[in-house]
Amino acid sequence: MAIPVGIVGFRGYSGLELQRILERHPHVEPVLLEHRHDAAEGARPRGARPVRRVNCAPGPIVEAGIPLVFLATPQEVSLELTPALIEAGLKVVDLSGAFRLRTEENYTRWYKEPHGQGALMAEAVYGLPEFYRDKVPAARLLSNPGCYPTAASLALRPLVAAGLVDRQAGVVCDAKSGVSGAGRKPSLRTHFCEVSENFLAYSVLEHRHVPEVLMNSGLREAEFSFTAQLIPIHRGILETIYFRLSRPASAADIVACYESAYSGEPFVRVYDPGKFPDVHGVARTNFCDLGASVSGNRAVVVSVIDNLVKGAAGQAVQNMNLMLGFAETEGLL
Amino acid sequence: MAIPVGIVGFRGYSGLELQRILERHPHVEPVLLEHRHDAAEGARPRGARPVRRVNCAPGPIVEAGIPLVFLATPQEVSLELTPALIEAGLKVVDLSGAFRLRTEENYTRWYKEPHGQGALMAEAVYGLPEFYRDKVPAARLLSNPGCYPTAASLALRPLVAAGLVDRQAGVVCDAKSGVSGAGRKPSLRTHFCEVSENFLAYSVLEHRHVPEVLMNSGLREAEFSFTAQLIPIHRGILETIYFRLSRPASAADIVACYESAYSGEPFVRVYDPGKFPDVHGVARTNFCDLGASVSGNRAVVVSVIDNLVKGAAGQAVQNMNLMLGFAETEGLL
Amino acid sequence: MAIPVGIVGFRGYSGLELQRILERHPHVEPVLLEHRHDAAEGARPRGARPVRRVNCAPGPIVEAGIPLVFLATPQEVSLELTPALIEAGLKVVDLSGAFRLRTEENYTRWYKEPHGQGALMAEAVYGLPEFYRDKVPAARLLSNPGCYPTAASLALRPLVAAGLVDRQAGVVCDAKSGVSGAGRKPSLRTHFCEVSENFLAYSVLEHRHVPEVLMNSGLREAEFSFTAQLIPIHRGILETIYFRLSRPASAADIVACYESAYSGEPFVRVYDPGKFPDVHGVARTNFCDLGASVSGNRAVVVSVIDNLVKGAAGQAVQNMNLMLGFAETEGLL
Amino acid sequence: MAIPVGIVGFRGYSGLELQRILERHPHVEPVLLEHRHDAAEGARPRGARPVRRVNCAPGPIVEAGIPLVFLATPQEVSLELTPALIEAGLKVVDLSGAFRLRTEENYTRWYKEPHGQGALMAEAVYGLPEFYRDKVPAARLLSNPGCYPTAASLALRPLVAAGLVDRQAGVVCDAKSGVSGAGRKPSLRTHFCEVSENFLAYSVLEHRHVPEVLMNSGLREAEFSFTAQLIPIHRGILETIYFRLSRPASAADIVACYESAYSGEPFVRVYDPGKFPDVHGVARTNFCDLGASVSGNRAVVVSVIDNLVKGAAGQAVQNMNLMLGFAETEGLL
Repeated sequence: MAIPVGIVGFRGYSGLELQRILERHPHVEPVLLEHRHDAAEGARPRGARPVRRVNCAPGPIVEAGIPLVFLATPQEVSLELTPALIEAGLKVVDLSGAFRLRTEENYTRWYKEPHGQGALMAEAVYGLPEFYRDKVPAARLLSNPGCYPTAASLALRPLVAAGLVDRQAGVVCDAKSGVSGAGRKPSLRTHFCEVSENFLAYSVLEHRHVPEVLMNSGLREAEFSFTAQLIPIHRGILETIYFRLSRPASAADIVACYESAYSGEPFVRVYDPGKFPDVHGVARTNFCDLGASVSGNRAVVVSVIDNLVKGAAGQAVQNMNLMLGFAETEGLL
Repeated sequence: MAIPVGIVGFRGYSGLELQRILERHPHVEPVLLEHRHDAAEGARPRGARPVRRVNCAPGPIVEAGIPLVFLATPQEVSLELTPALIEAGLKVVDLSGAFRLRTEENYTRWYKEPHGQGALMAEAVYGLPEFYRDKVPAARLLSNPGCYPTAASLALRPLVAAGLVDRQAGVVCDAKSGVSGAGRKPSLRTHFCEVSENFLAYSVLEHRHVPEVLMNSGLREAEFSFTAQLIPIHRGILETIYFRLSRPASAADIVACYESAYSGEPFVRVYDPGKFPDVHGVARTNFCDLGASVSGNRAVVVSVIDNLVKGAAGQAVQNMNLMLGFAETEGLL
Repeated sequence: MAIPVGIVGFRGYSGLELQRILERHPHVEPVLLEHRHDAAEGARPRGARPVRRVNCAPGPIVEAGIPLVFLATPQEVSLELTPALIEAGLKVVDLSGAFRLRTEENYTRWYKEPHGQGALMAEAVYGLPEFYRDKVPAARLLSNPGCYPTAASLALRPLVAAGLVDRQAGVVCDAKSGVSGAGRKPSLRTHFCEVSENFLAYSVLEHRHVPEVLMNSGLREAEFSFTAQLIPIHRGILETIYFRLSRPASAADIVACYESAYSGEPFVRVYDPGKFPDVHGVARTNFCDLGASVSGNRAVVVSVIDNLVKGAAGQAVQNMNLMLGFAETEGLL
Repeated sequence: MAIPVGIVGFRGYSGLELQRILERHPHVEPVLLEHRHDAAEGARPRGARPVRRVNCAPGPIVEAGIPLVFLATPQEVSLELTPALIEAGLKVVDLSGAFRLRTEENYTRWYKEPHGQGALMAEAVYGLPEFYRDKVPAARLLSNPGCYPTAASLALRPLVAAGLVDRQAGVVCDAKSGVSGAGRKPSLRTHFCEVSENFLAYSVLEHRHVPEVLMNSGLREAEFSFTAQLIPIHRGILETIYFRLSRPASAADIVACYESAYSGEPFVRVYDPGKFPDVHGVARTNFCDLGASVSGNRAVVVSVIDNLVKGAAGQAVQNMNLMLGFAETEGLL
């Protein structure tokens, strides 16, 4: 029998993606947790299977037999809701940035606002299973990684660990994201006529996802230049990462480094040296695809994910699978 | 009375853009020079003003009183046509890469094919007026710059000249182009369904536009990492350029460097420090827009042009204006 | 010396288009009339030519020597502002639907709200110059036509007048519009991710533009079926119009009917029988392009305009030209 | 154990879609049948599961234990390959138009070319299961319906059968399709820059899909006006269908007619009266969604499918399921 799991923020793009993934999952049933002003629904065909709804409060959630709640909410809402949910004995998978940065100080520096839940943040497990898999099953509070950091960290951590990166020359990560990354709340920035036939850099050297990449890769802030840009597509992130090699190495060496680091990983795929992945290849999948080229001591790596799947809802379900004891890939292949 | 000027390759995107610009130009009249298998035309409204056509051979061109010919053709066609046109006393503005690289050796290294017109290449004037304006009026053969190098060179040359760039750490240019940059000849790469909702790197560390940037900026090849990527838009190039500062400087210092270098230039515009241009701001214009940010010793510059205008047809008309003695901005503002 | 003309609603898509057209107009200078909460501006390059601004009230407008004001505002704002502007002796070109429908009763039926300015509405001249040119120059209040009705009326009126349409079988107008037609105010309906890769009918058989088509074409409501649909493009309207012929006629006969009706018209173009215009052919122009096919007694006509130009700002300038005594095409070719 | 089924034309959009669907199907395994000049493959990640390949000839196919072959090929290739495959005892599901029109005469009229396989065409079962389900299981040669006719026939047949349509006034079907409907072979018509920001009618009153709609709906040619148009999206068909009611009826009556006709059908969904489906609602699904509105005796119905799924590969798998004895929805929900 399917286990009910809750979704707060089910009308945002991450929440909608969670619904789509969980509806195909063999062991769980998505339940919509109604919270304040959820946006109005569009028309649906008659006879569409109704989805269960429960009031978003610890009592009703526990009564409904729900063991785990996804928060697909802005960080201020996650900060507000999480303590009571944890208190009630529920497992929480938070897709926002509320609990990713370990210390209140670090959070306040990047998010420009107070935090106030330092103990919970310290306890939270950062859910990038390819790096921290052993900590996930026992987590009460799972902090799901940001979309940009997922792609950048999977590309950078093995190379930095192998000492291939000349850290003094610095690492550049030029990131491009589809518009769903900006959320579903309407704004001039996401208006079709402003996005279509356009391209722009919206965050240069100061994106709040930077500290996550530093935590995961081991790079220092002064070594890492990051720019976030908006592509006129719905979903997908492509990051072009540039660095200098610290010792002679070929594209094949970089590919070999990835294959060794991700041997057996179901969701990381590597391309032949000099070949590169594109957004179409990962759209609507939980894969992160990697490719590399080298010329002299200059190296370029391309990392691609679907920002709504491996960058949000898919990775959240991957974490849920580990937390509830299912196979890690269940519902994701 | 309008002076007739010829266009070879009038059905490609650069050729079509030349027609559009020249039809509004007060002093010249575009004449289509028919060459081999020009693609079939689509339907046009009745009564549309007919455009003059002349056979693409030196005799008929001279007879038609045409003093200047634009070659909006692939480099192999430009190589084939140019000698006879020059011989016949015509001025040539070549939009291809045929005559940009100064030596046959350099050409063969990047274009992977023989050249055979070394003397003409040595004579050709590289038409980036912001840098080489004084050589343009007397040119017989004007080599119009590539689209990527136009944006990159305008961004880099003043900073390198001012000694602001730490060349040892290297410069990264992450370039993104609209699909018209790939030409009008149909291919799977430009099929709507392959481009739409996609994003990919199609040339990593080996694009044939790289040597032009080196020539213009003064950087050495080992100091410059370049990647070209395809955005699902029709027109526009945005380049995100990363470097380390060689001495303490702010974004305002970079902006000041640009304002000094481009003071009085009609087609280069600079944004306030920390503000960045986008593709919409330059679409269908001959402008190059520049913006800059700095954090510590990490600097980022964004350079934007319309690849079909400042990156091709507009710059070609800017050069034509100088070659025929018109005001440089005629027909371009 | 340029005559100053005012624009209220200069941040909407029609207002922005008015600015672009008027900046190239040889005889007038656009002045921005500031009204309440105009949306925040984006970044602009340094040194961009400042546009004059005046407070949107009759006194300051008159003092600034402005003889004519464009209202690129929602109909409720136009209803509120117009009486005082007219009172102050200003000419008004209203781009909203506020004064198009002749009677308050008709207005209230289609706009579902009271009007309250019946006398002004009765006086207003409906500015489709191809049909009502002689009334435009003397207008105090010019009501600029809707975008859908412009394309539909130019296609239908000559055919109905010539008795070619079997009115009993009914006329179908299947209309498709770019997203700028929905306005610049952000909403879920215009969010890039909702529009891209989508297509939908948003108004079926009940659009408030219907009564304008009836007025212009002479058709009765029961004879006319209209559906409005959203295409994932920025600008452009294409209407596919179906009817039965009331007597034997060919596509060439329909084309001849159009050529006779629009002989000498600078902004209506006709295609050869069986050939059809597309959106690219009219984008950023003030043209309306028409094409026709016939099979047996079934006829299809396609009418295309740029919704922001011939469907809004361009037609408004065409009317202004007539009202201020300039050549009708000034600034529009 | 999975049954191998063959795909000819596996590089076209229908062939690629067949692969995607069949890879998730629990009872079959797709085998690629290599035929002449299949287009070159793009890069793929290392370690991607290899797909079995077999030479496209009856001998090797039979030897591989394949009982059924999909032809995702142009009609001339289907005409060439089918006889030998049938001869060899294989079941054939043909996605082209080769065998849909029952008589050679009819075929030649619409496809402007000879046929030559009249007996096979007469035997072929037209695979629209919602109408002809009982004939599908025993078919040797299954002719999969066209994309436009699938959407139009599902919308029209029940209404015509119920006598709701005033046939004398005529029925209009204004059809819009995503670009994948034009095939994967590159052409100027499918070039990104020609499609993006454009919209056009490419076939007016003479599309070769018309005779299928007539066969399925019972309408006569003189009663049916059809136009096909290209939307700048990858996948999806939306048809807006207009007719006059032959007797008083409401939108609710039309909806009731559909619900009665499609009661128990897994792939047809109906919207509430006055509500309409969009392309997003059916993308990547095998659903056909229907909505209706009425005003007086004027009725409008909107029918939406994914042209690559219910309009091609999905419906082909639906037919395969019936032919091989699986549940009809297997692999499709």
